[in-house]
Amino acid sequence: MGLPNHFDLVATDGEARTGKLTTPHGVVRTPAFMPVGTAGAMKGLHWREVRDAGADIVLGNTYHLMLRPGAERIAALGGLQAFTGWNGPMLTDSGGFQVMSLAQLRKVSESAVTFRSHIDGLSFELSPERAIELQRLLGSDIAMQLDECVRLPAERGDIERAMQLSLRWAERGKRAFETAPAGYMLFGIAQGGDVPELRRASALSLAGIGFHGYAIGGLAVGEPQSVMLAMIEEVAPILPRDRPRYLMGVGTPEDMLEAVARGIDMFDCVMPTRNGRHGMAFTRFGQINLRNARHADDPRPLDEESLWPSTQRCSRAYLHHLVRSGETLGAMLLSEINIAYYQRLMADIRDAISQRALASFRERTRADWEKGDIPPR
Amino acid sequence: MGLPNHFDLVATDGEARTGKLTTPHGVVRTPAFMPVGTAGAMKGLHWREVRDAGADIVLGNTYHLMLRPGAERIAALGGLQAFTGWNGPMLTDSGGFQVMSLAQLRKVSESAVTFRSHIDGLSFELSPERAIELQRLLGSDIAMQLDECVRLPAERGDIERAMQLSLRWAERGKRAFETAPAGYMLFGIAQGGDVPELRRASALSLAGIGFHGYAIGGLAVGEPQSVMLAMIEEVAPILPRDRPRYLMGVGTPEDMLEAVARGIDMFDCVMPTRNGRHGMAFTRFGQINLRNARHADDPRPLDEESLWPSTQRCSRAYLHHLVRSGETLGAMLLSEINIAYYQRLMADIRDAISQRALASFRERTRADWEKGDIPPR
Repeated sequence: MGLPNHFDLVATDGEARTGKLTTPHGVVRTPAFMPVGTAGAMKGLHWREVRDAGADIVLGNTYHLMLRPGAERIAALGGLQAFTGWNGPMLTDSGGFQVMSLAQLRKVSESAVTFRSHIDGLSFELSPERAIELQRLLGSDIAMQLDECVRLPAERGDIERAMQLSLRWAERGKRAFETAPAGYMLFGIAQGGDVPELRRASALSLAGIGFHGYAIGGLAVGEPQSVMLAMIEEVAPILPRDRPRYLMGVGTPEDMLEAVARGIDMFDCVMPTRNGRHGMAFTRFGQINLRNARHADDPRPLDEESLWPSTQRCSRAYLHHLVRSGETLGAMLLSEINIAYYQRLMADIRDAISQRALASFRERTRADWEKGDIPPR
Repeated sequence: MGLPNHFDLVATDGEARTGKLTTPHGVVRTPAFMPVGTAGAMKGLHWREVRDAGADIVLGNTYHLMLRPGAERIAALGGLQAFTGWNGPMLTDSGGFQVMSLAQLRKVSESAVTFRSHIDGLSFELSPERAIELQRLLGSDIAMQLDECVRLPAERGDIERAMQLSLRWAERGKRAFETAPAGYMLFGIAQGGDVPELRRASALSLAGIGFHGYAIGGLAVGEPQSVMLAMIEEVAPILPRDRPRYLMGVGTPEDMLEAVARGIDMFDCVMPTRNGRHGMAFTRFGQINLRNARHADDPRPLDEESLWPSTQRCSRAYLHHLVRSGETLGAMLLSEINIAYYQRLMADIRDAISQRALASFRERTRADWEKGDIPPR
């Protein structure tokens, strides 16, 4: 309890909220989508393009950065912002999620998780305290507690055990964060899988411990969207109203729109860049597959009403050609186009909430997505 | 003879020249380096970055474009400029060079070269007339005649046969170009390998046929730099003084500086982007290998006096990390840094020629390269 609050709620509309989160490296307008700069770089985008697209904050992966180039090295080079040249707010995850998904020979104990690097096989130990130390070395504006995330479907017993361990790690993480300078933040993570009472218990305990903000973890890991939304509905009302709420690893534009309507403020996901590398564009008309032969002779842009230059100008025929030819520029353009779409959606959502018009915006936006792409010529 | 001249010589300094070449899509300041946009895209750069770096003109490869997406398709989409979004001058090669290096089952006859696509094995025929037709469909500001290029070292008999065939193809190309609209240009290509008298004979015959400009082909194909420069010294004095001279496929910064001093006006090369993808940076201090461990902890930029933002700001440590991690951004940044260095070199060369100070510029620049990189910290 008692951690200073850096979040200002500006307006609400039903459960949805818009606000400003003040970090040491700048202000984040919420709801916010955080593009994922895995190992200190966005795949296919320059930082200036991330900024131009409207992102206030980006996410870095502690697991990747601790292995290469190393958190101590980044600290010696002045922290993640100085290192990468992204001069804005950064959130880092704890490393735990990627230890679970990427590392080899991992072993979870009460004290820590041990694993071998997927790059060179070297052994590492990640404890709740070391997770905080790493993120402090990186200079993250927002650090995440170490938690254990269970892939769904899973047994209730496994979900509960991981949730309880995550709570004990939350307390240890909070103690380890006590020496952080003013303005830097630590978020706790609610777990509990797809079990409503475990989700509620986790959120309640976390709120009791007290953090600068609260994340919902362990979702978008294979469960249906309806389960994800139901879990948000269980957890959000329990989390302190005046603190930011972050739904980790989510998601599609529709996931985000629905989660905002249930009180979520922050998101991150690799989908816009990953799908961009696979020839997919996110637009007002839903997702468009540029590999499809229907685009080969189509001189029209993806969306002539878009305010983003590449979306409004690059022809479908050109994008199709680049994707089919495996040209890097295809991945670069589609990643940029998708990040810009995600940021535009967030900006429109913030405007709609400010005008207490989210319901009609949501209806209109969903109708556009469902209508699908413009007909072929 | 009698083709209209679109080249204005602005100043000369010894054999070196600076001028302006007026094309249907804009003016090209010479000496000019043309970045290579192989299949309608620069590898790792947006067109806006190519423009910002100072490039007036780019090169497209007819071989790649005829196979995918197809010249007829690009014509239907409004030509290369409309297709790619590069709204400036474009030169295309004839396709011949890449037929020789990439295609399968190629067969050269008097009438044409036949080959199978390296993409799908389909058969194609490329005649001198079809090479012009393809480039007209693409909408190239400057088209190149079809020629036969011999890899060195080679027998004199083979070099002479290819040179004579290229001259006959030059005449056929010129006839095929007669219907091109005003302002579009066709360049002839001097061949002759490393045999001075064949080089002179080729250049003399080409000048007799008469083109908008003249290229020197078949160099930078394995011979020492001294041979390349010697061949330029044979050919340049024979080519019409008032027409642009283009040294194909060249080269390193040093190659270009030396070739300019011998009367060359235009260059193209994949080296800045290809080497960029392999972790190499071209700078004032010569070529720098960012994979080298000496950069891992170095917060200094590549060149703090550079006027190009990424060269002047990105730390060596960050570039090293990106290259070692295989991050796309590493290739993007180094490609951009290298194209910018090539363009800056050309701009400085143009200034030096205008001030009749190329000799001292050349000495200073070579001394900087030879001094090598700044010492490690």
